[in-house]
Amino acid sequence: MSSIGIVKYHDFTFGQIKDDALLLDCGKTLSPVTIRYETYGTLNKNKNNAILIIHALSGNAHVAGYHSETDKKPGWWDDMVGPGKPFDTDKYFIVCSNCIGGCSGSTGPRSINPETCKKYNLSFPIITMADMVRAQYHLMEHLQIPKWLNIVGGSMGGMQALQWAIDYPDKVESISAIATTCSLSPQAIAFDWVGREAIMKDPNWNNGEYEEKIPEKGLAIARMLAHITYLSDESMNNKFGRKLKELCDYSYDFSRNFEVESYLDYQGQRFVERFDANCYLYITRAMDYFDLAAKQKGDLVKCFSVTKASFLVVSFSSDWLFPPQKSKEIVKALRANNSDVVYCNIDSNYGHDAFLLESKALGSLICDYLKSVYDRINNVQRI
Amino acid sequence: MSSIGIVKYHDFTFGQIKDDALLLDCGKTLSPVTIRYETYGTLNKNKNNAILIIHALSGNAHVAGYHSETDKKPGWWDDMVGPGKPFDTDKYFIVCSNCIGGCSGSTGPRSINPETCKKYNLSFPIITMADMVRAQYHLMEHLQIPKWLNIVGGSMGGMQALQWAIDYPDKVESISAIATTCSLSPQAIAFDWVGREAIMKDPNWNNGEYEEKIPEKGLAIARMLAHITYLSDESMNNKFGRKLKELCDYSYDFSRNFEVESYLDYQGQRFVERFDANCYLYITRAMDYFDLAAKQKGDLVKCFSVTKASFLVVSFSSDWLFPPQKSKEIVKALRANNSDVVYCNIDSNYGHDAFLLESKALGSLICDYLKSVYDRINNVQRI
Repeated sequence: MSSIGIVKYHDFTFGQIKDDALLLDCGKTLSPVTIRYETYGTLNKNKNNAILIIHALSGNAHVAGYHSETDKKPGWWDDMVGPGKPFDTDKYFIVCSNCIGGCSGSTGPRSINPETCKKYNLSFPIITMADMVRAQYHLMEHLQIPKWLNIVGGSMGGMQALQWAIDYPDKVESISAIATTCSLSPQAIAFDWVGREAIMKDPNWNNGEYEEKIPEKGLAIARMLAHITYLSDESMNNKFGRKLKELCDYSYDFSRNFEVESYLDYQGQRFVERFDANCYLYITRAMDYFDLAAKQKGDLVKCFSVTKASFLVVSFSSDWLFPPQKSKEIVKALRANNSDVVYCNIDSNYGHDAFLLESKALGSLICDYLKSVYDRINNVQRI
Repeated sequence: MSSIGIVKYHDFTFGQIKDDALLLDCGKTLSPVTIRYETYGTLNKNKNNAILIIHALSGNAHVAGYHSETDKKPGWWDDMVGPGKPFDTDKYFIVCSNCIGGCSGSTGPRSINPETCKKYNLSFPIITMADMVRAQYHLMEHLQIPKWLNIVGGSMGGMQALQWAIDYPDKVESISAIATTCSLSPQAIAFDWVGREAIMKDPNWNNGEYEEKIPEKGLAIARMLAHITYLSDESMNNKFGRKLKELCDYSYDFSRNFEVESYLDYQGQRFVERFDANCYLYITRAMDYFDLAAKQKGDLVKCFSVTKASFLVVSFSSDWLFPPQKSKEIVKALRANNSDVVYCNIDSNYGHDAFLLESKALGSLICDYLKSVYDRINNVQRI
């Protein structure tokens, strides 16, 4: 299927006056706040075809299409968003914004602090998933969208989708929570900790104050580590096994011998070119702090009691970062509230990354689900 | 049960003359080679009660007892080795040596290279599991042990135990291979790679030439990362959950908030005090290179065809570093050779660390197994 073609990003800024500043969970405020976003398709007359896509840790607002004729890579979910695709831009109005704290256009630790006229760096306040959602709500108002037809997110995006359902129950018709969790596990917190240590112990990090010399070694280590958690043991066996890279035998030294070593090294290097170390610290911390039912002392059933949305919950069998069991906890708590829930555990050996790779199975599921929600609110009789 | 009490280590050196040097898989030789070892119990008249215990990555020759009256911690497997314990020192003669490449007395990268009168550091040759076993064979000859009653090892120790069965089939009556594998998986290779990168990118590492300023940050990161792989998701949930450390609420910064963060940090710091960074590089590389059936192009059945030993294979249900499936592959290949195999998958939520923690279940299994082998070779009728 064809791509949506050339797309442009937009920047929306709010909170220039203190009264309009973004209030954060940590008690501080952020102002002004710029949100970079892209839209695809057209908001219909009834304004009931708007879908918010929320990106994962290293994602951004550029979901589909190309930024220029010479752009080589399309947006990160191009196979899912476009004319005739599951998120059909002929039918729906799609919005995606870069999360605050990020490094792809929205206000984050590398933005200029208007009070000092220097980069925030570590003076940027710690943000949470709820803060990211609150910023997205400002964008929703700006775009004059009364209610989202669907909010969809995978991984960290799914956390925010769930947060939307709790914090703005009247503003969302349905949620698609994919390969996600209602709270970060101690194992995931542990991996995040080690990744941040690698960045913060890199001398170039310099307490967050880096310019030309960036903490690329630490950031690459953090990324390589995280990348292992996105794959499964089985997919690594299938993809690499113990195959050697351009060698007939071991080199008997510490250089890259195995294909998996070269792959990781490549992933680390590419990440350093496109992502910022301080942003990595802030976003992983926001994930660590994510615990949807914390205010209800862990009572997920009580936590979901406010929601009015219907839900599509999707997990992947080999995902060990946010395993199916976590999705089942969400489904169980929603069903205890008599919420309308469709749950699917897709059989896949791709691990956590399956949410970006299993486009066929996920696409058909999402396509049908969106249609059912759209038809329901438009009172279309299904045969 | 009581400890074996005060024990002493011994150093055995061979290869002072070039003809007696240790030939390594990489094609180089090592000379001289010192092996630090400890023994417990007494070799009987028939010399058929000797058991070789092989330690894991960060272990050493000090298995049981104390080195002095003021020594606070006993050896690493003290609950398993001693009078009346599973490795009963009233009955068996127990030997454990520090592997070559290690940093606990045996020749390794921090030893003095006699050719330069300086530390080997990166001029130390890359070693393999088979090289470690070959060095242990020299010790066996030195101790005038004709045949091991049993060779036992967990994790990396299990790899060497399996290597013994292949390389010295006439020298071993039985093998206990615990929480181990016949080849390192790409996932484990990947974790090792990231750990070594953390060490080698630490400026203090200085291409392996460090003295006062050691690469403690990199080594701590490598250890913390590895430590996560030794635990299971479930055991981390049970032990830490999302509990905060001495905090009522998040601190909204990057300091240690969660108990799991404090725990990892502590583990990293302690490791730096007792282990060497270069040794960590060499030993993890030896593990990466471990592929028992490589010479048989992966044919494990063919690989085990030479062995004459009987086997006890033990895995732990929640071990995801060396999962039960890997043990089952070993068992299957042994059975295809009509080897005498006892296999047990112990139900435990401790993850890979279970081999050090499930002493009761493992102890009773080992105790019975050793007795059966001992009785068999001594022609004792079992009722």
